[in-house]
Amino acid sequence: MTQTRKNAVVLLSGGLDSATVAAIAREKGFDLCALSFDYGQRHAIEHEAAKRVARSLGAAEHIFQKIDLRSFGGSALTDNIDVPKSEDVSQISPGIPITYVPARNTIFLSFALAYAEVIGSMDIFIGVNAVDYSGYPDCRPDFIAAFEQLARLATKAGVDGASCTIHAPLIHMTKGDIIREGMRLQVDYSLTHSCYDPAPDGKACRKCDSCLLRARGFEQVGIPDPIR
Amino acid sequence: MTQTRKNAVVLLSGGLDSATVAAIAREKGFDLCALSFDYGQRHAIEHEAAKRVARSLGAAEHIFQKIDLRSFGGSALTDNIDVPKSEDVSQISPGIPITYVPARNTIFLSFALAYAEVIGSMDIFIGVNAVDYSGYPDCRPDFIAAFEQLARLATKAGVDGASCTIHAPLIHMTKGDIIREGMRLQVDYSLTHSCYDPAPDGKACRKCDSCLLRARGFEQVGIPDPIR
Repeated sequence: MTQTRKNAVVLLSGGLDSATVAAIAREKGFDLCALSFDYGQRHAIEHEAAKRVARSLGAAEHIFQKIDLRSFGGSALTDNIDVPKSEDVSQISPGIPITYVPARNTIFLSFALAYAEVIGSMDIFIGVNAVDYSGYPDCRPDFIAAFEQLARLATKAGVDGASCTIHAPLIHMTKGDIIREGMRLQVDYSLTHSCYDPAPDGKACRKCDSCLLRARGFEQVGIPDPIR
Repeated sequence: MTQTRKNAVVLLSGGLDSATVAAIAREKGFDLCALSFDYGQRHAIEHEAAKRVARSLGAAEHIFQKIDLRSFGGSALTDNIDVPKSEDVSQISPGIPITYVPARNTIFLSFALAYAEVIGSMDIFIGVNAVDYSGYPDCRPDFIAAFEQLARLATKAGVDGASCTIHAPLIHMTKGDIIREGMRLQVDYSLTHSCYDPAPDGKACRKCDSCLLRARGFEQVGIPDPIR
């Protein structure tokens, strides 16, 4: 018996979260159309990670969009501003950090929506998380719901009656839960990259928010991080 | 007595509508931070028009974002698909035409939102029009309202209590009304470009939807189009 598979757009950064989301989408029966961005990051290491992850999950397509958020500035991830470092996760400052990139997920989802409409899909997967996250406003459930509403009004498909689903399966999971789910789906986390401020050879700094949250996740699960 | 001026982001295509919107923003007391896109159009003529218009209106800044919507395809404006032509405006096909670019205004407004947040503004001007338009879903008032709602949830500024205003002053105006308003504000329409399918020398085709709507606008006002 053949099963009809559907396309879905999966936003893929090459990090732990988006790799897990891609594996979830595949398990749900979607063919993966992966979408990654070069948005003027200071490091291209995560591109290589995104490519490795897409390949390992058998993505049907993988499109890279080069966009220039540096021309606007305003973030430690795109400007020459130091990424904050701490010794452990309890030291992460409350509030929205300097690594916030203005409107980033809005921009990412907008491109995903264009891609989805072209491939005849209204399913988009994104690895946002509102538990072990860094306080970014565009990671919250209200934001996701508002984007679904916008997508319905913004597109030809929406006018024709289709509703858009932004799948955010990690949104209420802890980092530990995410890793457990990924292990179940046999995600190879050695392929992923999370660090905001890696050394030139790609090694994680282990002190930025992203490294600290990742380390806590593997601690919660009680297994070592296989990252290279 | 000095007047405090505020920044606003103005989406500027170099067409008649966005030039008029920029003039309206300036009259309302905003300093113009113009934002234009190269989204893989087949013609770069409108870039030159956008530059001329920004200069003529004394924009404080003008940023060009190069984005690649061709990698997704799906539109006569980005693919090698013929732009539909008619002899007069009554022949424009009903429904959403092949010149529709998937999620274009969603993408444009997302970048505008990032720019606005960086310059400390929550005012964005866009020249969408729901009267003499080509049937695009992302030109409707509901779409604009949904984006304002999204912007409030998507940004640090929104979390801090700011509300975002998407100014769409042309949304209920006919093309004739838009031109009358622009004439009052001394917009130089000879600098603008509207055609979807210009000749290599930049001359308008006079038969695409955009040319036909522009021609009808000048007819309504009873003046000749000063376009070169």
